[in-house]
Amino acid sequence: MTVRPQRVTFRLALADPDEAIPVVLRLVASAGGQLVGLARDATRATEGTVAHEVNVELTGDASVESLAADLEDVAGIKVLALVDEVLAAHERGKFRVELARPVRGPDDLALVYTPGVARVTQMIVDDPTAATRFTTRGNMVAVVTDGSAVLGLGDVGPLASLPVMEGKVMLLKEFGDVDAIPLLVDERDPDRFVDIVARVSLGFGGINLEDIAAPRCFEIEGKLRQRLDIPVFHDDQHGTAVVVLAALMNAARVVGRDLSSLRVVIQGMGSAGVAIANLLMSAGIEDLVPVDIDGIVEPRRGAGTDPIRRRVARQGNPRGLTGTKDVALAGADVFIGVSGPNSLTLDQVRTMSEDRIVFALANPTPEIDPDLARPEVRVMATGRSDHPNQINNVLCFPGLFRGLLDAAATEVTDTMKVAAAHAIAAVVGNDLAADHVIPSPFDRRVAPLVAAAVAQAARDEGHVRPGSGGSRREESATALREAALRSIERGRDARTAGSR
Amino acid sequence: MTVRPQRVTFRLALADPDEAIPVVLRLVASAGGQLVGLARDATRATEGTVAHEVNVELTGDASVESLAADLEDVAGIKVLALVDEVLAAHERGKFRVELARPVRGPDDLALVYTPGVARVTQMIVDDPTAATRFTTRGNMVAVVTDGSAVLGLGDVGPLASLPVMEGKVMLLKEFGDVDAIPLLVDERDPDRFVDIVARVSLGFGGINLEDIAAPRCFEIEGKLRQRLDIPVFHDDQHGTAVVVLAALMNAARVVGRDLSSLRVVIQGMGSAGVAIANLLMSAGIEDLVPVDIDGIVEPRRGAGTDPIRRRVARQGNPRGLTGTKDVALAGADVFIGVSGPNSLTLDQVRTMSEDRIVFALANPTPEIDPDLARPEVRVMATGRSDHPNQINNVLCFPGLFRGLLDAAATEVTDTMKVAAAHAIAAVVGNDLAADHVIPSPFDRRVAPLVAAAVAQAARDEGHVRPGSGGSRREESATALREAALRSIERGRDARTAGSR
Repeated sequence: MTVRPQRVTFRLALADPDEAIPVVLRLVASAGGQLVGLARDATRATEGTVAHEVNVELTGDASVESLAADLEDVAGIKVLALVDEVLAAHERGKFRVELARPVRGPDDLALVYTPGVARVTQMIVDDPTAATRFTTRGNMVAVVTDGSAVLGLGDVGPLASLPVMEGKVMLLKEFGDVDAIPLLVDERDPDRFVDIVARVSLGFGGINLEDIAAPRCFEIEGKLRQRLDIPVFHDDQHGTAVVVLAALMNAARVVGRDLSSLRVVIQGMGSAGVAIANLLMSAGIEDLVPVDIDGIVEPRRGAGTDPIRRRVARQGNPRGLTGTKDVALAGADVFIGVSGPNSLTLDQVRTMSEDRIVFALANPTPEIDPDLARPEVRVMATGRSDHPNQINNVLCFPGLFRGLLDAAATEVTDTMKVAAAHAIAAVVGNDLAADHVIPSPFDRRVAPLVAAAVAQAARDEGHVRPGSGGSRREESATALREAALRSIERGRDARTAGSR
Repeated sequence: MTVRPQRVTFRLALADPDEAIPVVLRLVASAGGQLVGLARDATRATEGTVAHEVNVELTGDASVESLAADLEDVAGIKVLALVDEVLAAHERGKFRVELARPVRGPDDLALVYTPGVARVTQMIVDDPTAATRFTTRGNMVAVVTDGSAVLGLGDVGPLASLPVMEGKVMLLKEFGDVDAIPLLVDERDPDRFVDIVARVSLGFGGINLEDIAAPRCFEIEGKLRQRLDIPVFHDDQHGTAVVVLAALMNAARVVGRDLSSLRVVIQGMGSAGVAIANLLMSAGIEDLVPVDIDGIVEPRRGAGTDPIRRRVARQGNPRGLTGTKDVALAGADVFIGVSGPNSLTLDQVRTMSEDRIVFALANPTPEIDPDLARPEVRVMATGRSDHPNQINNVLCFPGLFRGLLDAAATEVTDTMKVAAAHAIAAVVGNDLAADHVIPSPFDRRVAPLVAAAVAQAARDEGHVRPGSGGSRREESATALREAALRSIERGRDARTAGSR
């Protein structure tokens, strides 16, 4: 988790700076650190001490903490604070509100607030779809969580999940130009959770569910989708599934196989595993065997299988395999792990087919060491940024929401997700190689292409806001002409009245 | 409601621009309009027509609508759209999300998202108060409404209220540098409303209730205040009350009276009236008589009086007056109207004392025409921007929330509101005059002074986040030293382990 080189700022209270500073420099140097900067902070002087900020870059193995202990142990030096880059990057939170225009005086106020705003409100009373064009709703997504399954940390609760949700907000904005805000929901009962989200959803053009534990996440997503007329997307499920499908499309090209002919084993039936299984089947894969810690997931297996998982078990596994994971793996072409660390052996990999493809997506420690597995497989992918073929959701969700909002979509379907996967896969194009089946998460070409593909699919399927024609531009053209005709009618009426 | 001069853009489809444009110019001129600009919009050309945007400024009485009708009546001209300044100012909504820092590559991602974010999340798990410093919560306010009492429009519902809530967001940001977002709650039962808001409140450092109808607003505010440990403020009630109190403090100076000696009649027992009554009594006014459409509001009067109003009736009216409004007005020093248009006569005003002060705050049409009343009273105030002494909530709420957030306040009390009123009143200083008892809503000195006064009052009362010391700076200093000591301890442990 340590980023190297690590930058850290020590805020020190020094009783005698002239004496202490050389000591500080010596200690930094002997910890293998380099001094980046040193500045007196006059605003923090207390009686008998002067505050200094000392910015250090640590390249070696020496820890920030042992250097802090070394400093604190010197008489006349007190470590007031130790702020590293990570904390500094999160200070005051990671996004702000920015106004579309300033409010400098009475004229501005009359336009954006009373009395001008009353006309916009009246337009929305007359025609609620006007809210898409004349409010923030048209570009606003709620990042909704209960904090029950946060990153690798688990159930930290809603408040502690806020820094992660802010991160999601950043990625939606940076890559998709989507405005989003975190919505922390302190409720664990799925029905009440759904009711709360539904009743505060009017200000949003889409809902991104995030870091909600399985199986509750399935129920919440299903019920919200039924109840709302805006897209509801659980990124941990479907974002992962879209990017896995994109990578698998290209991996199939690498091994020269039709996607639908591949025999796939998915290990891990959490939220991601279930969604991957469903999307791969939607995309035409027929032979898909779900496995978990107890072996092959069978429809009739009792404990721990909820309706959603049972459906995967029923729809997959066409050869009716039973037993251990080894049974499923024998002769399989694809292993997709969304489970736990070091849970796949090299011997197991060797029982797969010649064309074997391994996506070991457990993070930070994959199901199998990618460097160990790579020589034994045709295509290797992980969730890690320090290995080739990183499966990263950021390739999907910003562009996907951009497209959904552009089309004023009322829901998100498997067809749109498959379209997103095709768009991601297509970016690789002629650069296709075993170690390049998926674009870099920072490839700026991806999101616009995903957005266009998703918006087109939404229009083709007709899942767009009633009367919108499937694009904000078309919507506005029709609505504006209609509004103009109403004005013209009033103008004619006034003229007639005036000429009498 | 029309803002003059009015700017409007006509989007026209012209069959033959060379022929049509001179006609357009003639029609604009004969409507008393001036051409501001004309531009071809190549992207909107359709078969047989070319689109042009014609920007016009109308200064006279001619209506946009009759000009639109004139244009549409010309063969070869079609009015595609008619977008005036008001609509343009609301297009796409009035605020955006802005990132505190960009996410350009893997290093940024490692800082703001995984793995870096996990450390911040862990800090909040260990100590929830860290969320104030390291998330958006410390500067984020929810503008919460059910859309039941929006401006003069009444019960438009939550979606149609969104443009107004965005306006509130703008004012909080522009004047208070407070980040806020609208939270539209589609629920009318007060208990369920309270539960919904409470369960989504963790991401906010304060709640601004807005445009919720009385008496539901009293119950909602009371229950939320009990349940939450962040300030809950219903601006329609308390924002108005604070600014009225500020104006009345200065009006008392104009007539040379002690505030507490004034006999006050408040007409209108909606949300604002009740709050004004309570705050004036908190500020020391003893003789306060509430009246409504049925006359003096008495504690025992049955229909239509809820507990909150009954309490005002019981605590006010020390002389036990009964009967009509005229009884209350006779000899009164102050009339405060938060009721309906033209509901106070000049004859009634003349029955008041010599020092009479009239605040006629009904909007847009006051209880009495201010130009008519002004010669008969010592101080006249309204809610209107086109008359002197405008009572405008924007003098209070942005600075108030700024102060509450700066102090990490856990609630907002009458003491803080009175402090805010003193700060607003003090800005007038030596410029005090009968037609200047309150600063301009755009006086930029107000919000920082209100913020400082409110934050100080919160600290003095001890209504600040536990362990914070009442300022984000003090809180962070203590928390940072504690965190540094924990790091130092780990550094010492590692050293000991290493030396064995």
